[in-house]
Amino acid sequence: MRVLIKDIESASNKILEKLGVPLDDMKIITESIVYAHEHGKPTHGIGRLPIYARKIKEGLMTPVTHCQELYDGEAIVRLDCNNGFGQVATYHAMNRAIDKAKRYGIGLVSVCHSNNFGTAGFYSRLAAKENMVGIAIANSAPAISLRGGKALLGTNPVSVALPTEGVLPDFNLDMAMSNAARGKIRLALQNGEAIPLGLAVDVNGCDTTDPARALEGAMLPIGGIKGAGLAMVIDIMAGMLSGASFGGDVRNLNHPTDESNCGHMLMAVDIKRFMDINTYMRKMDYFVAKIHRAGAMFPGEHGAASGKNGFCDISEKQVESIRQLADNLKVEVL
Amino acid sequence: MRVLIKDIESASNKILEKLGVPLDDMKIITESIVYAHEHGKPTHGIGRLPIYARKIKEGLMTPVTHCQELYDGEAIVRLDCNNGFGQVATYHAMNRAIDKAKRYGIGLVSVCHSNNFGTAGFYSRLAAKENMVGIAIANSAPAISLRGGKALLGTNPVSVALPTEGVLPDFNLDMAMSNAARGKIRLALQNGEAIPLGLAVDVNGCDTTDPARALEGAMLPIGGIKGAGLAMVIDIMAGMLSGASFGGDVRNLNHPTDESNCGHMLMAVDIKRFMDINTYMRKMDYFVAKIHRAGAMFPGEHGAASGKNGFCDISEKQVESIRQLADNLKVEVL
Repeated sequence: MRVLIKDIESASNKILEKLGVPLDDMKIITESIVYAHEHGKPTHGIGRLPIYARKIKEGLMTPVTHCQELYDGEAIVRLDCNNGFGQVATYHAMNRAIDKAKRYGIGLVSVCHSNNFGTAGFYSRLAAKENMVGIAIANSAPAISLRGGKALLGTNPVSVALPTEGVLPDFNLDMAMSNAARGKIRLALQNGEAIPLGLAVDVNGCDTTDPARALEGAMLPIGGIKGAGLAMVIDIMAGMLSGASFGGDVRNLNHPTDESNCGHMLMAVDIKRFMDINTYMRKMDYFVAKIHRAGAMFPGEHGAASGKNGFCDISEKQVESIRQLADNLKVEVL
Repeated sequence: MRVLIKDIESASNKILEKLGVPLDDMKIITESIVYAHEHGKPTHGIGRLPIYARKIKEGLMTPVTHCQELYDGEAIVRLDCNNGFGQVATYHAMNRAIDKAKRYGIGLVSVCHSNNFGTAGFYSRLAAKENMVGIAIANSAPAISLRGGKALLGTNPVSVALPTEGVLPDFNLDMAMSNAARGKIRLALQNGEAIPLGLAVDVNGCDTTDPARALEGAMLPIGGIKGAGLAMVIDIMAGMLSGASFGGDVRNLNHPTDESNCGHMLMAVDIKRFMDINTYMRKMDYFVAKIHRAGAMFPGEHGAASGKNGFCDISEKQVESIRQLADNLKVEVL
């Protein structure tokens, strides 16, 4: 059904406040949820709030994010999210990366002991707004099959944002290493829909169009061993190097009993170190013109159009689950 | 046919010397060619020498690589290859990135006005040898179709190398953004073989198994718009930011009349900034064990086995073209 994005924003704020999330953190989390709905990533939006609510209630996640700086040396910073909101720690992490890039030309910041941060493009774009290249990666719970069998690696998203000017949205590549995001399979299950062949295998490694069997089974990586290799790199950089879990040990956001302990890595590169920003923008215009002339769009262009009218589409089931959560918390939403 | 890798090394040295390549540069280029044959990348090996020879003869490439430092500021360095050997400039670039990473934790070095550097893994591994993460990217001539039509972006390789210990080879992901490398299609053409469906389209955007039609047409990116998006990011970072050509303007290494003007970007990240190296190695052992238990290999593991016995397989046609070149240069090889 069609929902006003303003109503999503207000629902998110009300629910997060009731969950004990501090005001500044609430703003970041809600902004990331609104961003997801405005950029064609509804699977990473308000539907996650019931999961957070349960985890906080069961002591599997803290409503207050005690983000701690473990290391600060030249262009590198390491943060610990201390099992709070991944959105909050990652937002700070990218801002630290931007600070470092201003001083050293590049900044690299890791986050450990975190929870799913929503959509990666929300953080990479912070750097693009500062005329920098922004890169955000995260590892996640086992979802991808390496050889058509059991899932070992996460869908491990990567986002790369680049500034553009004028009416163009930021160049923002935001993708999982699987042929489809797990969130899309989950949404299909919620909506009772089948999934296309080639996206996933069941628990026996056989192709399936059933989202439930796909979620028990595994997603297939883009380009076979290539996507699997990229997912490994992200698992090692965002997970192992940050000090988070890796190698199949990250837990799903909605795991019934365990903390997630996923990791993130944020990078900012100052474009001014390579050329003045006007030259860059002219070159970017040329690039975009070439892409358009080939009949294609650049990453982020299609998604940016999806929230422009102030509305977004979410399923009845999702609205129902949000209303139920709000009822339990005694707030009125949607 | 089976050829001794030692004979490839000696052939490469003799030919490069005759072409007027200085001794130090010759060593780097030959080492990169030997690396390709020893790591399952024969398409990026000695077969490229006849192309270099023609380009040097026709004034489209310089035998002496006058690698020039355009900028040095904190963690960033920009180099100009001045249309010499991409291998030489990139080798220096990665060593500069390693120096920077020692001091700042991370180093980022660009190379412009370059030529195809062979296989990306040769450079990323330099960082891995120093207990660093090494990343190498390059843009290349139009080869990938964005929507099943004309080629616009290059296959734009990326390599990520990570140190391992003991008998394990380096973790080395070295991949093009297409479902197959253009070099593999070229090799199929040379050997008169068909290519599998799904790798490429002809000039009309239709699937093809004919390598000649595929080379006129375009390669398909991994994961559709995902691989296309990654190829765009690499085109912008390695090409546009470095000051090289981009947006479809890089020329093929074997272009009949034009300089290539491709670009590269090299990155090194010092692992010690994240944890002590023994801890890292224990974690890496754990990671590799998990991958092996899933019945898979890590990137670089399969390729590293291919040159272990001191021999490699190259086609008769390729040997013939090397012998002919050597005859013209009046040296004896293979």
